[in-house]
Amino acid sequence: MADPRPALAVDIGGTKLAAGLVEPAGRVLSWSVVPTPSGVDAEQLWRTLDALITDVLAGRDAADLAGCGCGCGGPMKWPSGEVSPLNIPAWRDFPLRKRLTERLHGITVRVHNDAICLVAAEHWRGAGRGRDNVLGVVVSTGVGGGLVLDGRLIEGASGNAGHIGHVVVDPDTGPLCGCGGRGCAEAIARGPALVAWAQAEGWRPEQADATAKDLATDGALGHPVGVAAMRRAGRALGIAIASATCLCDLEVVSVGGGLSQAGPLLFDPLEEALRAHTRLGFARQVTVVPAALGQSAGLVGAAALIFAADRYWAAD
Amino acid sequence: MADPRPALAVDIGGTKLAAGLVEPAGRVLSWSVVPTPSGVDAEQLWRTLDALITDVLAGRDAADLAGCGCGCGGPMKWPSGEVSPLNIPAWRDFPLRKRLTERLHGITVRVHNDAICLVAAEHWRGAGRGRDNVLGVVVSTGVGGGLVLDGRLIEGASGNAGHIGHVVVDPDTGPLCGCGGRGCAEAIARGPALVAWAQAEGWRPEQADATAKDLATDGALGHPVGVAAMRRAGRALGIAIASATCLCDLEVVSVGGGLSQAGPLLFDPLEEALRAHTRLGFARQVTVVPAALGQSAGLVGAAALIFAADRYWAAD
Repeated sequence: MADPRPALAVDIGGTKLAAGLVEPAGRVLSWSVVPTPSGVDAEQLWRTLDALITDVLAGRDAADLAGCGCGCGGPMKWPSGEVSPLNIPAWRDFPLRKRLTERLHGITVRVHNDAICLVAAEHWRGAGRGRDNVLGVVVSTGVGGGLVLDGRLIEGASGNAGHIGHVVVDPDTGPLCGCGGRGCAEAIARGPALVAWAQAEGWRPEQADATAKDLATDGALGHPVGVAAMRRAGRALGIAIASATCLCDLEVVSVGGGLSQAGPLLFDPLEEALRAHTRLGFARQVTVVPAALGQSAGLVGAAALIFAADRYWAAD
Repeated sequence: MADPRPALAVDIGGTKLAAGLVEPAGRVLSWSVVPTPSGVDAEQLWRTLDALITDVLAGRDAADLAGCGCGCGGPMKWPSGEVSPLNIPAWRDFPLRKRLTERLHGITVRVHNDAICLVAAEHWRGAGRGRDNVLGVVVSTGVGGGLVLDGRLIEGASGNAGHIGHVVVDPDTGPLCGCGGRGCAEAIARGPALVAWAQAEGWRPEQADATAKDLATDGALGHPVGVAAMRRAGRALGIAIASATCLCDLEVVSVGGGLSQAGPLLFDPLEEALRAHTRLGFARQVTVVPAALGQSAGLVGAAALIFAADRYWAAD
C-alpha cells in the first residue's frame, strides 16, 4: 500500500515564503504564507521559515510526514542544497537542505530550484500533464524556469538547467541584469525592473511600495505606462521562449508566478513575439498556457520531489 | 561477439554530400565527398547521392553492412525521415529514409539531423566524451546543433531539439532569417550571410563564388572586413551559446562545420560574447572547444545512430 502520509512542502521566493501539507495525489491540504522579510540576516530569515513550518505542522510529528520537498530561488548547489537565491541576499551558500533535515529530525528532505518545482508540478498535475517536452516559467521577483525534455526533468551539469531568465533577448541595448550580464529576459521582465521602468516613464502609483501587480492592475484599467510595461515584459518573455522552443523542441510552455496573473495584457504581446520568432514548422507547434495550478504550483512541485521522485529527482 | 561489419554513413549538407564506411569503434575506413549540386530537382539530387553511395560501397553487398546511418540538414520529420533541409531547396518532404532503405535492400537505415549527428559523434568519440551535458554546433551553410543532456541525446517533441541556429540574438536590428524570423544566430553567422555582409562592406574577393572560408582566409591575412565578419559571426554564436548554457546548464560546447576552421578569428570574439553573457556561477563553468573529430564528425555521428543506438536513437 502506498504511503498515505502527506509531505511537507516549502516554497521560498524573494516575495513570499510558503509552506503546506500535500497529499500523495498532489492535493494541498493546508498552507500558510508570509512575506519574505527584507533587511535581515541569514539566521533571522531562517527563524521566519522555522516559525512558518511550526505553524503548518500544527503539532504533527516529523515522523508522520512522507518527507519534505522544498523549492527555493536559484542558483543553488544541487543536490546538496546550499542556496544563494539572487533575490534573497541574506542567504549566500546557506545550507538549506541540511538545516531543514535537522529541523525535521532526519526525515528525507529534497531541495530544488523553485522554478524546477513549478515545471515538476505542471508536468505532474498541471498544464503539461501527459506531454513530454515542457518548459515551466515563473515570472515574479525574478524570472526562473525548469525543463522537462523527453519525459524527464533535466538537471544539467549542476542541477541548474531551466534558467530561462538568463536567456539573452537584447544584448546591445538591454538593461544590466542582476547576474552581471546585459539584456537577459529577467533584467527586463522581473517585477521590480518593470516597476522601475514604469516609474522612469512617468507612472506614479498610489503606494510608495507599489509592485508589478499594481502596475498590471493600472494597465488593465487603461494606464498607458502599465500597458507598455506589460508589453515590454511580454515581448522579452516571448523572445526567450522562442529561443528555448527552437533549441529544445518544446510542446508546452506553462507560465506562472505573480506577473502571470496580468492575463492578456502580458500574454498577448508574449504570443506576438513568440510567433514572430518561431517560424520553423516544428517550432510553430508550441503552445503557451498559464500555469494550471496557480499559486499552489510551487507547493505541489515541492511535494513532487517526494511523491514522484523517479521523474523529478535524479540524485540520492 | 559484436557485429564486425562496418556501417554505411551518409552526411548531407547544403555544401557537400559525403558517404563513408565506418567501423564499429568509430574509425572511418574510406569516404568520398562531392559538392551538393544546385539548381537541380529532387530526383537529380537523389541520383547524385545514389552514385556517391555506389562509389563508397565499391561492390560491397548491403548485407555486409551493420546498417546505414545518415545525417541531413534540418528540419525533418523524425523518425520517419522525410527531410526538408532549409539550405537544399530541391528536397521538401523528401522521403530520404525510405529511399535509402530501398536503395540498400531493406537493411536498417536511420536518418537524423546532421547537427544531431555531430553532437552524437562528439559525445561518442570526440570532445564531449565522458561529459553528460554537451551542445554540438555546426557552422557552415547553416547553423545547426544537437543536445546531449543528462547523458542522453535529446529529441524533443519532433526530433528537432538542438536548433541553436534559431536562437534569437538580435531581435530588433538583426537580419531576416531563412526561417522567416529576425535576428536568429544563423541569419548572421551562416557562411553565405557573412559573405553577403562582407561584400556589402566592400570586400572584393578574387573569385566570383567566394565562400566564408575565403573570407576567413582574408581575415587571417589581415583584411579588416574579413576580421570584422568573423567577429560578427563569433559574437552571434557566443550570445546564442550563452543563452543555451543558461537554459540547459551545459558543460561543453563543441563547434564544428567549415567555418570553425577560422580558428581564433572566430573563437576569440565568441568567447568574449559568451563570457559577457554567462555570469551566473554555474554558467561560467562551460567550455567551448573546436569539434575534435574535424570534417569526419558527420560520418562518425551518422554511424553512432547504428553502433550506439541506445544513447543516440530513441525511436524504432
